[in-house]
Amino acid sequence: MESIKYLLAEDRIPRAWYNITPDLPVPPAPVLHPGTHQPVGPDDLAPLFPMSVILQEVSNEPRIEIPEEVRQVYAQWRPTPLFRARRLEKMLDTPARIYYKYEGVSPAGSHKPNTAVAQAYYNKKEGTRRLVTETGAGQWGSSLAMACAFFGIECKVFMVRVSYDQKPYRRALMEAFGATVAPSPSRETDSGRAILAEHPHSTGSLGIAISEAVEVAAKDPHSKYALGSVLNHVLLHQTVIGLEALEQMEMAGDDPDVIVGCTGGGSNFAGLAFPFVGRKIKGKSKARVVAVEPAACPSLTKGRFTYDFGDTAHLTPLVKMYTLGSIFVPPGIHAGGLRYHGMSPLVSHLLDLGLIEAIAVQQLDAFAAGVQFARAEGIIPAPEANHAVAGAIREALRAKQEGASRVILFNLCGHGHFDMQAYIDYHAGKLQNYDYPADEVAMALAGLPAVEV
Amino acid sequence: MESIKYLLAEDRIPRAWYNITPDLPVPPAPVLHPGTHQPVGPDDLAPLFPMSVILQEVSNEPRIEIPEEVRQVYAQWRPTPLFRARRLEKMLDTPARIYYKYEGVSPAGSHKPNTAVAQAYYNKKEGTRRLVTETGAGQWGSSLAMACAFFGIECKVFMVRVSYDQKPYRRALMEAFGATVAPSPSRETDSGRAILAEHPHSTGSLGIAISEAVEVAAKDPHSKYALGSVLNHVLLHQTVIGLEALEQMEMAGDDPDVIVGCTGGGSNFAGLAFPFVGRKIKGKSKARVVAVEPAACPSLTKGRFTYDFGDTAHLTPLVKMYTLGSIFVPPGIHAGGLRYHGMSPLVSHLLDLGLIEAIAVQQLDAFAAGVQFARAEGIIPAPEANHAVAGAIREALRAKQEGASRVILFNLCGHGHFDMQAYIDYHAGKLQNYDYPADEVAMALAGLPAVEV
Repeated sequence: MESIKYLLAEDRIPRAWYNITPDLPVPPAPVLHPGTHQPVGPDDLAPLFPMSVILQEVSNEPRIEIPEEVRQVYAQWRPTPLFRARRLEKMLDTPARIYYKYEGVSPAGSHKPNTAVAQAYYNKKEGTRRLVTETGAGQWGSSLAMACAFFGIECKVFMVRVSYDQKPYRRALMEAFGATVAPSPSRETDSGRAILAEHPHSTGSLGIAISEAVEVAAKDPHSKYALGSVLNHVLLHQTVIGLEALEQMEMAGDDPDVIVGCTGGGSNFAGLAFPFVGRKIKGKSKARVVAVEPAACPSLTKGRFTYDFGDTAHLTPLVKMYTLGSIFVPPGIHAGGLRYHGMSPLVSHLLDLGLIEAIAVQQLDAFAAGVQFARAEGIIPAPEANHAVAGAIREALRAKQEGASRVILFNLCGHGHFDMQAYIDYHAGKLQNYDYPADEVAMALAGLPAVEV
Repeated sequence: MESIKYLLAEDRIPRAWYNITPDLPVPPAPVLHPGTHQPVGPDDLAPLFPMSVILQEVSNEPRIEIPEEVRQVYAQWRPTPLFRARRLEKMLDTPARIYYKYEGVSPAGSHKPNTAVAQAYYNKKEGTRRLVTETGAGQWGSSLAMACAFFGIECKVFMVRVSYDQKPYRRALMEAFGATVAPSPSRETDSGRAILAEHPHSTGSLGIAISEAVEVAAKDPHSKYALGSVLNHVLLHQTVIGLEALEQMEMAGDDPDVIVGCTGGGSNFAGLAFPFVGRKIKGKSKARVVAVEPAACPSLTKGRFTYDFGDTAHLTPLVKMYTLGSIFVPPGIHAGGLRYHGMSPLVSHLLDLGLIEAIAVQQLDAFAAGVQFARAEGIIPAPEANHAVAGAIREALRAKQEGASRVILFNLCGHGHFDMQAYIDYHAGKLQNYDYPADEVAMALAGLPAVEV
């Protein structure tokens, strides 16, 4: 048989997460208090996060041990498989060898449980009774709902309105896990009511939903907040993906020339890429690392690298990142997980340092790639993952054009089982591309806080 | 770490399917021609199936080799994992050890690709250009659509009306794979038009959809028919499940005392159970083997063991099976894959011989079990699989009551990602139990052909 699957034994689940921070040639900019513009300390974050998570957020340790209780839960689906996409290679008639790491084998169907389980574990240990969060497409919300069910914590999810309406099955999954789900903007919070007063038919955004979740968590001493992307500790937890992939690529006897992932907040991309970028910094790899973002919400390719809020109502600290402006509400594309105005500070920093590159893909191109992939490989990707598929196919076709053998590795971060309405709309010709909303972004950027560091 | 997952290496994908027929203490009754009531020969079936499949249908070989091309496709997701449901055990506070074989890891999300891939392969080899089939819940239709995409065959699916309306995402998946899907009963066939003339609002049934698919396939020399359950060759292809599970239970150091599967046409149940029943026949096991069927369509517990047609329009040969009468249209429960009037002749035969037992479960009990399982194990089962979960939980609670340590193995034949409307309805209190429709069944049974053998 031709090898198409590279599996690691259970004892190869990484014992530590990889922290890229100490390996960076230039340290990332500090997180600032929104009032004083001074760097925040752990205590400033204590109302929102358990202390073990806060310490990970600011850690300079290169390896952070994964608790056995977390590895035990991981063991249900980790190590995840690495696949060689041989049927896709044949379909594209490319000399490239295409590999994908498949995170859709987790029970919630994406990479999100990698951090959801860790966050639920630390919160449980520190006595949190309820976790409050936001969700875009629902991948994160359902992962946190599942993790909370495992550890016996209540879970409250603010789901971006457009996804709440587009993806009722996602909501049903969260509710089956016992979570409470509200559409965002909601009337349950000051932030939500303020948005609704101005825009009664707001489709919501991750930025708005974050405001609502942060507000609820900050007001209740028994609740904490959990974020599914953007922050350092979230990206840290996702590095199990890349650590496993490093070993699996070795099993396959190939070293990737190009590494591709889709970016919304940056966590699945970072999860796969950071261990490889670490090798690149150490001169052990020359791989190109490509972030693929939606053309409708192009923070890396069209945003400004500056200090901004993580949320729309400006309740969070200020972080330095590529941003389209925190009051920018992206068009209602189906890749709800990519509808975020900003980008993880660490991913932003890597782009600024030239260690990674970024491209933007239109919605219709992403879905065309996803359908092609599904017919070749049988797996229907999440709309977010379609962007990574499109990026990988583009690289494979370039290799064909150049007649170059090339090894491409991408992160298939989740399946699209709960997103089939998007495919129904795509096949019915109801999906559209979105021009880069330059005017709206310019307006949103004009309102950014002036920070002098 | 506590072991919760038992994985086999790729080279442990079985090299041969297990044929239970030669091991049976009494041979099963022959399949009869509907006109002559004489046993059918291979040529009678040639308009519908490729010859290699027909020969498997009637084979007496104990082992039937799996073509390397089929194993190559299997290798994407097989061997499937065997899990120990430790969190469920704790939730139930049972001394029983509960294991489940999880077939939902296939790209189409169920056990159905095990036979879909084999059937598509043999058809491609024998020159079939199009496969025509029916689907209930859509698990089978999407699996065949996927297999046809892999082998470059067209695919036409008649989808039972109630599922077509309840499960638009399943349809979208089939269409993403390139298949054409029609609701059944349709106006495309004589059988469909006849049903619609009498019942314009018919919700359809597997029996009706089979009639439509058989009719279309029989009329077109380039098309063949593919069935997703019931027949011997389908059950044969599914035995990879049990063959792997035998090895995995050995890895786990446990021998099952009870084996549980849900039954509609019988294929996932047989796939897991037959290799264990084979051991039982040979005196190597005393395991109880329990088929769990829906109370709304209780062929094994309330049907008659007699000759009947496989479809409603009476286009198929006559098979001896437990049946509720081929014109019986089961209530529109959400476990669409279990809405079949009959039962696989081999499974029926085993029940008649006392080698297996059967119980019926109400819809609400099945969903309650499924939600409990999801909160413990993170996997949301298909409505069909909920019946197996309910059966396994019943056994685990009985073990607790008896204070008996007991090893339970069940088949989690698929996930419910495309069936979330059922969970939405369940949580909204919209699902109901169905009394056994005794009058309708009596009427359907009264119309059975009188066969003297």
